[in-house]
This record gives sequence, structure tokens and C-alpha cells, in this order.
Amino acid sequence: MNYKELVEQIRKKGSFLCIGLDSDMKKIPAHLLGCDDPQFEFNKAIVDSTHHLAIAYKPNLAFYEAEGSKGWASFEKTVKYIKTTYPEIFVIADAKRGDILNTSSLYARAFFETLPCNAMTVAPYMGEDSVSPFLEYPGKWVVLLDLTSNKGSFDFQHMVNAETGKELYQEVLIHSQKWANKENMMYVVGATQATKLAEIRQIVPDHFLLVPGVGAQGGSLAEVAEYGMNNDCGLIVNSSREIIFASKGEDFAEAAANVAGEKYQQPMKELLTQKGLA
Amino acid sequence: MNYKELVEQIRKKGSFLCIGLDSDMKKIPAHLLGCDDPQFEFNKAIVDSTHHLAIAYKPNLAFYEAEGSKGWASFEKTVKYIKTTYPEIFVIADAKRGDILNTSSLYARAFFETLPCNAMTVAPYMGEDSVSPFLEYPGKWVVLLDLTSNKGSFDFQHMVNAETGKELYQEVLIHSQKWANKENMMYVVGATQATKLAEIRQIVPDHFLLVPGVGAQGGSLAEVAEYGMNNDCGLIVNSSREIIFASKGEDFAEAAANVAGEKYQQPMKELLTQKGLA
Repeated sequence: MNYKELVEQIRKKGSFLCIGLDSDMKKIPAHLLGCDDPQFEFNKAIVDSTHHLAIAYKPNLAFYEAEGSKGWASFEKTVKYIKTTYPEIFVIADAKRGDILNTSSLYARAFFETLPCNAMTVAPYMGEDSVSPFLEYPGKWVVLLDLTSNKGSFDFQHMVNAETGKELYQEVLIHSQKWANKENMMYVVGATQATKLAEIRQIVPDHFLLVPGVGAQGGSLAEVAEYGMNNDCGLIVNSSREIIFASKGEDFAEAAANVAGEKYQQPMKELLTQKGLA
Repeated sequence: MNYKELVEQIRKKGSFLCIGLDSDMKKIPAHLLGCDDPQFEFNKAIVDSTHHLAIAYKPNLAFYEAEGSKGWASFEKTVKYIKTTYPEIFVIADAKRGDILNTSSLYARAFFETLPCNAMTVAPYMGEDSVSPFLEYPGKWVVLLDLTSNKGSFDFQHMVNAETGKELYQEVLIHSQKWANKENMMYVVGATQATKLAEIRQIVPDHFLLVPGVGAQGGSLAEVAEYGMNNDCGLIVNSSREIIFASKGEDFAEAAANVAGEKYQQPMKELLTQKGLA
């Protein structure tokens, strides 16, 4: 899916919501645990009930790998189900991979050839050749970790470069623009540091930003839009636990749709309307 | 496996070799491709023929994920086979994971509970709370990326901190020592930057270093030992392609053992003997 198609989806649905499929087996509703593939059945129900409210889904691999190869099969089945049933949906493998060139090529094969993901999250620590193999697939995207939503983001990401006066997360933005462009790269910027979005927009005015940390982690949607939105929206805001675990009962899918609609898609539609984008 | 047991293994075998099981389906010998599980059969044969020469194996997840959930099953089977058949062997999942606390806990569950890995590689970009969940398992190890062997390591890892004058890879060593100790943390330092090992030893004199990049990537074993070895050896040197793909014929396992012995274990034994460690 290319940049233009993504912007069109956002306008059409009046939404820039990504739902994180962090489908921890220890948290999914008890009545599903008897199924052959509880993680997939859970995801399928969530996707079927929310696909009109979201433009993207982001399964995080940790929650599948915790179940071993069976979990990987649930992840695969989920990605294939979404891309077959709702091909307009943008699927982000939240994998945070990154390795030497030879090895990153294999990760790219895993998520972009073996599986039909549209994008995957990649860690920047190992530099250009750890990222470039993912950029060789037309229409596929790297979502590069930049300024994350967790406490540990203060350990290294704000370190100031003695030569340039820029912080590490700013250097990541500056360097990576030499490798990629707004058609194949986005950045992860945590909503918990929303005021930083204005600064980030000065460095990357046109790139999409994937913003986790709204909801359970405490970030505010209005602030994210105020500081981060550009003329094509330029934002994909992710919420995981708050939506998918809204209810632990048999109504979990309906409850997820209610939260996705009321707390995310409806306010998003208003924010987009104010910008003339919906 | 704890620090003392690891040092004992090194002394006993006269080796500090780790063999990287980068078992790319596109490179394993043709005669295995008819098996039910070619990646596992390949790994099993390599391990059976080299276990007396190596103290550790390091399957890199990329090569298994490229085959989807089937590949994950081969990875699982490999880890379980090694830990059942050769329990003294140290198994490192080369996964380069790292995420927010809640999510890193699930990766820890994946590799340390669902699977019996002894250690896993973790990326430092997201800071302490992305690493700490892996440190909660007694006897398990984090192998933190520090100074990697690839070209891209020059993009960010050498950035100088304006406040301290230290480079990012040095900051990673300094900070992470507050989270962990030599009993549960090692560092990845590429052999292609062997002269940096002397500097690194000033910051972490006692920690084990996992050193990739000898062999196919061009690093030298003698230099690594000269600059990196400490009184308990303190080194695990990894070689992957040069050993496992020494032959593409039916003699691949024997050929792997020959390279592992002649190019690695024998020179390692000499280096250990010179230090009074074998």
C-alpha cells in the first residue's frame, strides 16, 4: 500500500486508528480458550467488529512468540485473514527487528514475502545496513523506532550529540531520511512525549508517525493531533489493551468496537474534519 | 547456566567457540530438502558433529522466521534438542528483541519459559525497562547489543555524548551495569572493531563479551583474544556461515567440524593455554 492509498483510507473512514493486537493468551476471554486457535479466533472477532473504525492493525510479535510456534501460526493466520478479508487495511508487524544486512534481509523475507504485512517496526541502533533490506520492497514500509513511549526512552534517546547539538532521536530522523522517504518510512513517536511532536515535525514534516501510548500508557489524542498532524493527517495512532481487552466477557468484540468508536474514531473524525480531511 | 559453570565449560573444552545456526533454507545442502524438517535435521547434524568443539550455539531467529511458523517450529525443536542432548551447552537465541516493559516480559516468557534458552540478544535503544524483564530469570542472560560488527554501527554507536564525552556504545556499557552484572549480562562487540576491545575492557573488565564477525565478516581471532580476553577468558567468539556452510555436500557436518576444530577450537585452546586457562 502506498502513501496516497493510505491517506485515502484515512479520509474515507474518518479515522487514523491502529488497533494493536497484543493478544496475550493470559488475557483473552475464558470462553475462547477451548478453541483450536484462541489467539486467532480472538483477533478475527476483534477485526470483524472494528475494521470500519480502524485503518491499521498492529500485531506485536511478543504476544505470539510467548506461545511458541503455535503462536507464530496464530500470528500468520491473523495477518493472512486481515489481508484477504479487508485488503484495504494496513498491517504492521510490530517486531522491532534489526540485524546485520545479511540477516535483516531474512527478516524482510519473513514479513514481506512469506507473509503479506504492509509494514514492520525496526530498531535503529545498528544503523543503515540493518534497515535498508526492508526498504527494497516496493509498497512496503519500515516503521523506525525513534522516540518511544516508555520510561527507558530517557536512557539513550535524548543523549545530545557533541558535534551537532542534536539528540539521538533527532539524529535518527536526520540520518534515516538519507536512506528512505515518506513513501517507505514512518517513525514511532510515543504519545507520552506529545509536545516533542512539534519539534519532530520540523525535521520530518511529511512523514507518517506511528504514535503508541495513547490510552493505557497515558498519552492524549488531542495533544497528539495538535502537535503532530500535518496536511495529509500524517498520523497513525495506536491503541491496544484499552480496546481489545475492553471486556473479558462474551461481548468482548462489541465492547472493543464501542471503545474504538467512542474514544478514538469519533474524536479522530472531528479532528480530521477541522483540518478539512474528512 | 551461571557464570562459574560457563567458565568451567570453557576450561574443560579448551574452547570459547559459539556456532551460529544461521540455517538459511536457501543455503542448506540439497540432499536434506526432502526431509520433513530440513532446518532441524541440518542443525542436529551440525550440533552432533561439533558439540565437543563449541561451548555455545546461537540460532538467529531471522533464518527461521523467513520460513514462517514452520521455521519457528524448527527453531524450537533445535533448542530443545540441544538442551536435552547436551545440557552443558549454552544456547543463545539471537533475537535482538526489546520493547516496552509489558511487551519485553512476553519476549522473556517466549525464550526463557516456553523455550529453555540460556540467553538472548537484546537491543538497547529503548533503555532499561525494555531490558529488565529478561533479567528476572535466575541463571538466564541478556546479551546486549553494544558495538556491532556491521558498517551501520558507525551511524549512531559512536555518537559522542556532549555531557560526558563518552560514545553511545560506552554509555550503553556504563548505564546497563546499573541494571545487571557479570552474572546475567554480556555484551555484543564485533570482531571487526577488535582494537576497541581494549577500551571496552576498561569499562567492563569482568563481563563476558559475545564477539561475532570473526570469519566471513573479516575479524581476527588472535586480535580479539589479545584485546578482549580476561582472567576467566571472558569471550565467546561466534562464527556462523564459515562453519555451517563449509560444504554443501553430504559431508557438510564433517566439514563443519573440521573448520570448527582447525580454525577455531585448536587456536582457542592455544590462546587459553597461554593464559593458563586450559
